[in-house]
Amino acid sequence: MLAVHLENGDVTTREIPLPHRPPGYALLRLLVGGICNTDLELQRGYYHFAGIPGHEFVAEVVEADTSSLVGQRVVGEINLACAHCEWCRKGLGRHCPNRTVLGIVKHPGAFAEFLTLPERNLHVLPAGIPLERAVFTEPLAAACEILDQVAIPAGEVVAVLGDGKLGLLVAMVLNAHGARVHLFGRHAEKLRIAAATGVATELASGKMPAAGYGWVVEATGSPEGLRAAVAMARPRGTVVLKSTVHGSVPIDTAPIVVNEITLVGSRCGRFEAALPLLGDERIRLEEMVADRFPLPEAAKAFERAAQPGVLKVLVG
Amino acid sequence: MLAVHLENGDVTTREIPLPHRPPGYALLRLLVGGICNTDLELQRGYYHFAGIPGHEFVAEVVEADTSSLVGQRVVGEINLACAHCEWCRKGLGRHCPNRTVLGIVKHPGAFAEFLTLPERNLHVLPAGIPLERAVFTEPLAAACEILDQVAIPAGEVVAVLGDGKLGLLVAMVLNAHGARVHLFGRHAEKLRIAAATGVATELASGKMPAAGYGWVVEATGSPEGLRAAVAMARPRGTVVLKSTVHGSVPIDTAPIVVNEITLVGSRCGRFEAALPLLGDERIRLEEMVADRFPLPEAAKAFERAAQPGVLKVLVG
Repeated sequence: MLAVHLENGDVTTREIPLPHRPPGYALLRLLVGGICNTDLELQRGYYHFAGIPGHEFVAEVVEADTSSLVGQRVVGEINLACAHCEWCRKGLGRHCPNRTVLGIVKHPGAFAEFLTLPERNLHVLPAGIPLERAVFTEPLAAACEILDQVAIPAGEVVAVLGDGKLGLLVAMVLNAHGARVHLFGRHAEKLRIAAATGVATELASGKMPAAGYGWVVEATGSPEGLRAAVAMARPRGTVVLKSTVHGSVPIDTAPIVVNEITLVGSRCGRFEAALPLLGDERIRLEEMVADRFPLPEAAKAFERAAQPGVLKVLVG
Repeated sequence: MLAVHLENGDVTTREIPLPHRPPGYALLRLLVGGICNTDLELQRGYYHFAGIPGHEFVAEVVEADTSSLVGQRVVGEINLACAHCEWCRKGLGRHCPNRTVLGIVKHPGAFAEFLTLPERNLHVLPAGIPLERAVFTEPLAAACEILDQVAIPAGEVVAVLGDGKLGLLVAMVLNAHGARVHLFGRHAEKLRIAAATGVATELASGKMPAAGYGWVVEATGSPEGLRAAVAMARPRGTVVLKSTVHGSVPIDTAPIVVNEITLVGSRCGRFEAALPLLGDERIRLEEMVADRFPLPEAAKAFERAAQPGVLKVLVG
């Protein structure tokens, strides 16, 4: 089969054998994949990754122990958990210390003609969801994770910093949840996507509103964004860290302590929360698709995804 | 009256007029004061402070609008709040944006023969509490603040980092609350104070236990302590930042996001929570008193308090 290979920053394709399907796993045929910022970070060498990248995908089940799955269109949770440890028993396999992660940690990724995942990771797509929407399930779940971690009452004002893919998804998810979202970003054309759903948007300037928000979501992935998020939080407010900032970020802890601010790290989320939103018109997903390349042109796809201002690039 | 004066790092005493007592305020005669790390930071020039320092105290009411207060021994909340803003209306005058702070921000401190505070800031001491215990009310309230912010179920294991004054108080308060406290510090003689109350103690080494605690309280005030606290927290665990680390601290946000850790800044607390603990023998306070100096020897008291390994130094 054809598979994308990422190593030392180079994206190539190669012919490799079909992956082995262990018991309890399904063999999946890729229908479409999405390039995430994490994939670009893998390319930049942050995690010494070498192998098949890709963890956002929609696929068709080709083989499975459960015969009713065969032929179904599925999306899949990316953490392959052990199912036995205390985290797994609590339903938090996303934190299983024994986990591998599709296309990130020790499990070949989705950017190939075929991939495997445990059947328990799969979710059958609701009928009538276009591929271009379904491919957003994983990042949409990451946006929904915020609502699993912190209770934001409907009607609350929430500032979201960053109009990249994750910032837009977070803004639209929180808006659909009933929060009054203020999205700050640097790209008028991206802000417009969220604005069309009722999100209040503002071009971020050097001077951001100080100590005004009970809830702030940092989704810029930049040291400045993190500092701004803390400065924008009211006393006893909550800052959700939705993006990793690479490397060490100098943070002044004094305002966090003096204003008793809570910082909440937030990563992957439950697909169950995201799937119903795939059919919700307040979540504008198609407009976030910037481009699509067939699998053999994966190198071009990665190049395009890394260009400034480009939102989601699809492969396959 | 005699008053301590702190300016440009110098601690002196001087004769100044008795303070004016505005309506609603009480005039207090100092019985004893306690030197806090914040006082030492003021001395180091961190906040360009010039004036009478001191915010930990026990005093006797000399004059007040409420005649029943006169002659009572009192302790006092250090934040002078406006009583009208939304924070004050919520009972969070400690976050009132219009507040002044006794001996810290625009209100003369307690290290003087007499001081003033609004009557509503005062708490009459329960009978039979020695001065050497009562003078700990304010830092004890700061330790209790943790339990106002996060719900730590009884029986939970909590790591406390730092065996300074605040670390010891936090360890003893959480232990009395019913948590199983592991206190890490660098001073065997300080750890012994908490150990005598049932706290498990350990001399901190370079290698601290990784990802083992659902709850970690950072009370070292050092960048290493903060980094260790994050590394010691389990996935979905909570790190309470009880100490300010001066200046910017380089923090790697990746483990916070990947492990979905919550950081909670924690500052002053309610005196109501601390007062009952003054009579609780599981809170060893007298043993934390290292020395006491009369007011005219305040400079010596500050010198002694700044010596390595010294716990609480009293003045007055």
